[in-house]
Amino acid sequence: MGDFELLDRDGLARRGRFTTPHGTVETPALLPVVHPDPVRQPVAPEEMRHRLGVRAVITSAYITWRTPPLRAVAEHEGIHGLLRFDGTVMTDSGAFQQHAYGSVEVTPEEIVTFQNAIGTDIATVLDVFTEPDEPHDRTGVALRETVARARASRELRPGLLAVPVQGGLHPDLRAESARAASELGDVLAVGGVVPLMEQYRFPELVRVLASSRPALAPEGVVHLFGTGHPMTFALAALFGVDLFDSSAYHKFARRGSLMTPDGTIALDDVREEICHCFLCRETPLTKLSGLPPEERERRLAYHNLWVCVEEVARVRQAIREGTLWELAERRSAAHPALRAGLREAMSHSEVFLPSEPDSRRAFREVLSESRARPAAQRFRHAVDLYSAGRDERRAILRFPLRPEYLAHLPALDRSGRVLEWESATPFGPVPVELTDVYPVGPYLGIDEYLERPRHRSPSAFREAVLAAIGTGAEFDRDRDWTPAWDERQVARLVEWRYGRAAAPAIADGLRAERSRRTGRLRAMLCDGQPEFVVGTDGLPRPTYRGGARLHGHVGPGRERVVVHDDAVPFVREGKSLFSTFAVRADPALVPGASALLVDESDHYLGVGRLLLAPHEMGRMRRGVAARVTAHARSPPSELEE
Amino acid sequence: MGDFELLDRDGLARRGRFTTPHGTVETPALLPVVHPDPVRQPVAPEEMRHRLGVRAVITSAYITWRTPPLRAVAEHEGIHGLLRFDGTVMTDSGAFQQHAYGSVEVTPEEIVTFQNAIGTDIATVLDVFTEPDEPHDRTGVALRETVARARASRELRPGLLAVPVQGGLHPDLRAESARAASELGDVLAVGGVVPLMEQYRFPELVRVLASSRPALAPEGVVHLFGTGHPMTFALAALFGVDLFDSSAYHKFARRGSLMTPDGTIALDDVREEICHCFLCRETPLTKLSGLPPEERERRLAYHNLWVCVEEVARVRQAIREGTLWELAERRSAAHPALRAGLREAMSHSEVFLPSEPDSRRAFREVLSESRARPAAQRFRHAVDLYSAGRDERRAILRFPLRPEYLAHLPALDRSGRVLEWESATPFGPVPVELTDVYPVGPYLGIDEYLERPRHRSPSAFREAVLAAIGTGAEFDRDRDWTPAWDERQVARLVEWRYGRAAAPAIADGLRAERSRRTGRLRAMLCDGQPEFVVGTDGLPRPTYRGGARLHGHVGPGRERVVVHDDAVPFVREGKSLFSTFAVRADPALVPGASALLVDESDHYLGVGRLLLAPHEMGRMRRGVAARVTAHARSPPSELEE
Repeated sequence: MGDFELLDRDGLARRGRFTTPHGTVETPALLPVVHPDPVRQPVAPEEMRHRLGVRAVITSAYITWRTPPLRAVAEHEGIHGLLRFDGTVMTDSGAFQQHAYGSVEVTPEEIVTFQNAIGTDIATVLDVFTEPDEPHDRTGVALRETVARARASRELRPGLLAVPVQGGLHPDLRAESARAASELGDVLAVGGVVPLMEQYRFPELVRVLASSRPALAPEGVVHLFGTGHPMTFALAALFGVDLFDSSAYHKFARRGSLMTPDGTIALDDVREEICHCFLCRETPLTKLSGLPPEERERRLAYHNLWVCVEEVARVRQAIREGTLWELAERRSAAHPALRAGLREAMSHSEVFLPSEPDSRRAFREVLSESRARPAAQRFRHAVDLYSAGRDERRAILRFPLRPEYLAHLPALDRSGRVLEWESATPFGPVPVELTDVYPVGPYLGIDEYLERPRHRSPSAFREAVLAAIGTGAEFDRDRDWTPAWDERQVARLVEWRYGRAAAPAIADGLRAERSRRTGRLRAMLCDGQPEFVVGTDGLPRPTYRGGARLHGHVGPGRERVVVHDDAVPFVREGKSLFSTFAVRADPALVPGASALLVDESDHYLGVGRLLLAPHEMGRMRRGVAARVTAHARSPPSELEE
Repeated sequence: MGDFELLDRDGLARRGRFTTPHGTVETPALLPVVHPDPVRQPVAPEEMRHRLGVRAVITSAYITWRTPPLRAVAEHEGIHGLLRFDGTVMTDSGAFQQHAYGSVEVTPEEIVTFQNAIGTDIATVLDVFTEPDEPHDRTGVALRETVARARASRELRPGLLAVPVQGGLHPDLRAESARAASELGDVLAVGGVVPLMEQYRFPELVRVLASSRPALAPEGVVHLFGTGHPMTFALAALFGVDLFDSSAYHKFARRGSLMTPDGTIALDDVREEICHCFLCRETPLTKLSGLPPEERERRLAYHNLWVCVEEVARVRQAIREGTLWELAERRSAAHPALRAGLREAMSHSEVFLPSEPDSRRAFREVLSESRARPAAQRFRHAVDLYSAGRDERRAILRFPLRPEYLAHLPALDRSGRVLEWESATPFGPVPVELTDVYPVGPYLGIDEYLERPRHRSPSAFREAVLAAIGTGAEFDRDRDWTPAWDERQVARLVEWRYGRAAAPAIADGLRAERSRRTGRLRAMLCDGQPEFVVGTDGLPRPTYRGGARLHGHVGPGRERVVVHDDAVPFVREGKSLFSTFAVRADPALVPGASALLVDESDHYLGVGRLLLAPHEMGRMRRGVAARVTAHARSPPSELEE
């Protein structure tokens, strides 16, 4: 397996670093398809590197092999010499030509040996391409042939090897193929999808990714063959695609089409100066039509390429920010077929949930569809579990709840008629104690603007509450943040996070600390010391002391990441826990979660925040599994206001 | 009134040309706010012109007036000399300062005289700004003061004058103010909205525009004060805003915020190369943070400005393409508040419908909200009217209908149980004869991709139809496009377009001509000659012969544009009908519609396609009212395939 280091994540997407013999590639990355013949290539690879920051390209080993003059140069100067490019070069193998023309004159063994000879950084197995609509039996036969070829190629290939994942539209075959590729490949290259993209069959593309992805090794680098259009990058990245490759920038240019992340425009239709890029400074789009056809094609290809490169940078930026779902939703407005693909993705939340971060800055609604994001589905499911078996005497407040009014609710309980309060939210009724928790808490959605706060004062709120339950029950307006309410919210939040069984013990003796300005809970204290800090995501996260408390009350194995003995001294000092030293972890944890760090004898070391999901720990050979947020010598926590 | 010429339109938006003493401005246009003191201005106006194509700016006459050194230069060299800018200069008058500081030291008369003296191209009345939340009475008082000042200013101002429209959130006052401004101003400047934009109160901004717009003179140029954020331009343009102005590019830069049409990003959060503009070639965004604060602010302001300029170009491009609703919907995904604003806009379809074009290339669904566009509402309403009083024996086909199968339906009528067939569409059930008509016909929506065609052959379709009505009725699969069906579709399309009363006479003797490839109706012929041509929008449009037929059967006044005698010889030769020669028109016509052109004695001249709405004809002093599409000497029509 190659060296892949994960740095940030969102959905299944990973921002990371992939090290190859010719340098490190920041992922997700676009590998432009480059023709091995410089005369047929509209933008020179070195210019891509110099002007667009492209660090890796893909070219055809097969075309090089079958074209004597190219082959001679490649055998003599290497593929890097032929392309005059010093970055990472991936080569493909003729599978496309084999499919298009029925056969190629080269054997799978010959082409991998040739790729070795020309010094490619990432060689590709000559696989058997199947059309999406091929039946199960034929697809299965082709797939097994691909696996046999991959096995033979692996024997011959000491360096990085890309193994294609085939299987057409058959989920079981995709999964089988993904498992086989994971055993043999460094780069796991999902193939056979170009027809789906060309025909805008995005829901089916999504089903292919959804059935392949869970079976792919987390330590592998995921490639998607032929992801050409920038409008699709965010969606593909959501499924953990690390490398895109495409010749679409050139193909679209050949037919006079301008690519944008919002769709395609015919160059001839462009009549306004809609672009101020560095290329349009030289020749605006509106003037390209007047150029000789070859020059026009070359410039348009260059333009399309930078649009793609820029969009991949936006995808990386979104992964850093935790806004990739937002970006994918925004892009899905480019075409109804893409929006249908996004909806399909949301229907596969089980694929996302094991690595979907536990919270983000805010839940921002982009489309109506946003409310079906996996994080929202997880939340709703957890609320249903949480509420199951509770007292039936509930009242639902049919308006948004502001934290400064929460305190008034328990007072109303004196009527004895309502024990559980729920607030209407965009995600359905939610117990009021949880209305600060992500995604409800920092929720930025359309409701907020359509229904501006109706209750501008506590008394107006009181009236509304009284109307909701139809009673004149007593209401003590002077007792803000009553101790009873404080106690209740602490108990309920602890229960939300750590379960009903352990909650009473954990919550025992904890006192609520609230923001004076907003009334929001911001910490849980014992003897004046914070044991849990509550961030803007509304989740309680243990301090060092809180971790010790937790350690005594949840177990065995629960909420824990077990640290290898060799790493214990470093973790004790607050150094990050690296993947290779994470022995095992509670499988219920997700990235972003705060967990207990313990040694192999379950001694408590501190608290860490997960970057990797439990199933990835140990398998990733580089990088951090968890960042230590509290250890014995941590400075006292600062509370967010 | 100034000279404004309309060239293309969409929604209420207009692409046009506005002529001023210092050149012509292509609208919609952004007028960057420029500080009169060059030292305080981050980007020089001449550089804006040279590098961004900015043809017009706005600056403060009041600040110039009250700052002796600036005033001296302006009085000596004119405002163009002070700004060192040779394009159009609009000046504002201190209303903002008057509002912010309670008063200004200049009278409304003085400041307009000063604006005359310094040679401004567009002077602005010193109006009385009111906050959106001011009550009706105070807003009304302020408004009447604004009108009085506007009247006095008009007396003093020979050149172009901008008259603000105030009225807060009160629809009646906005309409009153808009009417008053329309009588006095060349530029009708909707004001008092900056607080709404700053607080993201877009639904209220939309209500202001919806109540002002219908009362604004169509020949006036509409300005919206302080439309600063590029994400809002498409929405504002939909309401017919021709000029935006804003200092937001600079204000945002001051607080380190990067503007994009998809929202705002803190510069410090930008960690990837997400931009390849000409400025980022010099210094990438990721490097700006390292610059000295002033330089950083200057460069960020420049960057923000080009983003705004580019977005306005995209708005103009979208108006040309007829895709402005799509663009506004896409942009609305930038922020939930903006999406709420868009929904509000759709709830004011009555404001759009008089000038909403009758069809576009295709109805492309961007968001779920798209189906509420005014054109869709108009269609639904027309279908309801069309279906009212028809036979109750209807059957609704709960699947998409493909034109090549339509022929099979009348055969089923033999069962005697179904007389009217409707097809389920994204816009509700629609009579099958109309399923090729915009917006149903060229519909590009999510259904199409979620529910791929289920009926791949006529026989599968037959089974589905039989299942739909639950009968084994006879089905004649050999009789494609039966004469009965042809006759029926022709009759129904004519009725759809020209009404039930006139239809039988108009349709008499017309024969259907279909595309051999798709089965779609493409013309209606009589004696082998096309009398109506049916385009991809499914609407019948008369040829010269068809117009003559129509002329005999609809009237009086209906479907007609009356041509002034002086223009009759030109129109007969196929020259465009100019606005000033359009005497009157059937008020039921909308832009894009094909209408009969007649002289003042109702002699038939030919057929024209409307660019202006009837209520705009004659009032616009420049430009085309209708393009002549068929006249006595037209070459024979070519049919679309």
